[in-house]
Parts: sequence; C-alpha cells; structure tokens
Amino acid sequence: MALPREYPGQSCAIARALEIVGERWTLLILRDAVFGVRRFSDFSRHLGVPRAVLAERLEFLVAEGVLERVAGSRGRDEYVVTDKGLGLWPVLRALGAWGDAHYSPAGPRRVFEHAGCGGDVASGGRCARCGAQVPVAATVLVPGPGYEGPAEGDAISAALAAPHRLLEQLG
Amino acid sequence: MALPREYPGQSCAIARALEIVGERWTLLILRDAVFGVRRFSDFSRHLGVPRAVLAERLEFLVAEGVLERVAGSRGRDEYVVTDKGLGLWPVLRALGAWGDAHYSPAGPRRVFEHAGCGGDVASGGRCARCGAQVPVAATVLVPGPGYEGPAEGDAISAALAAPHRLLEQLG
Repeated sequence: MALPREYPGQSCAIARALEIVGERWTLLILRDAVFGVRRFSDFSRHLGVPRAVLAERLEFLVAEGVLERVAGSRGRDEYVVTDKGLGLWPVLRALGAWGDAHYSPAGPRRVFEHAGCGGDVASGGRCARCGAQVPVAATVLVPGPGYEGPAEGDAISAALAAPHRLLEQLG
Repeated sequence: MALPREYPGQSCAIARALEIVGERWTLLILRDAVFGVRRFSDFSRHLGVPRAVLAERLEFLVAEGVLERVAGSRGRDEYVVTDKGLGLWPVLRALGAWGDAHYSPAGPRRVFEHAGCGGDVASGGRCARCGAQVPVAATVLVPGPGYEGPAEGDAISAALAAPHRLLEQLG
C-alpha cells in the first residue's frame, strides 16, 4: 500500500484503533463478517474489493485477533468474528447511525431488532421496547424504509433482503 | 489522492459515513477538533500530518458540514466542530474504548469525567456516578493511568497534560 498504516507520534487509543481498522475496506469487511459473511469469495463479490487487498486485510485482521480463520465446508477457509472483533460493533453502529442521520433521505436502509422481543435496537445497543442491552448475536438485521432491494446477481445481497440474525452464516 | 474516496456499490450507511470520515487522518483531525484544537498550525504540529493533506481534509470536512470555518484572532481561520460533527463523537469514543481495551497495557492514556460531578463518562456517554447522559461540552478530558507525559515542544500536547473541557479552545 502506498500509505503507511501507522500514525507515528500519535499514542492515543483512537490512533491505535485506527492503525488496526482504519485502512480502506477494513471496517466494511468487518461489517460483512458481523452480517454473516464468512468466505473469501463472498466478501470479494459482496464488497467488490480487489482480491489482493481483501487477502491482505483478512490476513491482518486474523493476525490481530479481530477475525479467526476456521476450516469451513468443502475444505475452504472461513473467517469468523472473535470477541475482540465484536468489540468494534459499537464503532460500526455509531458510524451507521451518523450515516443514516445525514445521508439517508429515504430513511435507514437497514434497521436492527431485538430477536424474540422485536423492539428496535438503538445504536448504543439498548432495546427500545424491553430496555435490555442486546448482545450482537441477539440482534436481527431487517431491511429499513430506505432499502432499495438487493444488488443484481449477488447472493449475499439477496440473502440480506430478508431479516437475518447477526453473526449467523449467510448465503 | 491515489485512492478513490467512494465505495461504489456499497449503499449502506456505514459505507456512506466512511466516505466522509474514512480517509487517513480525518478522524484524528476530528478528535483534535473536539479536544479544542482550532488553528491550522496547531493541527499540523500536533498531528504531524503533511500540510497539503491537512488542508484537503479540513476543506472537505467544512464542505460536508462536519467542521465550520470561522474568523479567529489575528485574522486567522479557525475550525470548530458543528452539531453534525459532534454526531461522530460516539464513533471516536467507541474506537478509543476498543483501543484502550486491547492496546493500552498500562491503562487508558486519557479518561473522561463529567464536569462538576466528577464521575467517569463511559464510552456510550453515560456518567457512572450520576447516571446522566453527558453532553460532549460537559465532558472533561483527564490524563489517565497510561499517560506518558506531553510530546516535547508541542504546545497542544502540553495543554492536554492538564484536565481540559472538550470543545474549549486549547493552546
């Protein structure tokens, strides 16, 4: 990569975190992993990221313990989010809440519900109906009012057109 | 810039947000602005970011309404965080909380207190002592157990060695 990953001289925790997840595509890869994408080919198709970049990012996230590489079906590697990686979900929710507030004129494209309860899960993770702090795995991703339908020919995008529990394997 | 800003095909709110603040240095510029840095020369010195990059980032953040350019003392432009920009503070706090949890073995370098109350402000913004949801402007930045002293010769870093209310002008 042309740009260095590091922020020399910046010793704060925000800079440290950005050294791990601040590179282009990394947070979208993590978003997809939380949404249930596990296979290299699925990340590649859904994100449209160059394969060399995707390979480098996945390798780095595994090395940092954000993702874990596990043996999947038919001998293919799969990538699953670790507990450390789940600790970044509040970052993604906060980014999405801000993006929705300012760049989604038709309303959120995706909303989050508390599994079983059905209440809306706010960006801080609290259920608006029952008040519980909802674990990521008990959160259901649901198309919102701004949803425009799946991207053509993309199985991951099609799978996300129906309500789907976070972290459960997609596609 | 060599890399395009856009994530074509990614219409989710997280991707939109990253198109605004996902470029290298942008979130650290915003962090400094919330900490009270306002002048170009102070951002430049504290971050060590190339001046051309800093100028491009500030220009873009002003165009997107994240920062506002105002006339400061001695005719110099200053940059202040808008309400829209403050909406990204939860992103920065979540990144910092994750960075501290995993990359600050000596404890947090900076902690956040509720002004007047003195309670710790959690990354979600709630005061651990009084339970209030604390506005950014009522949050005091305090050196934490992992603080290693200011960087030599940097007035902003020196000013941050003492407790300091967020958004109040530094230096």
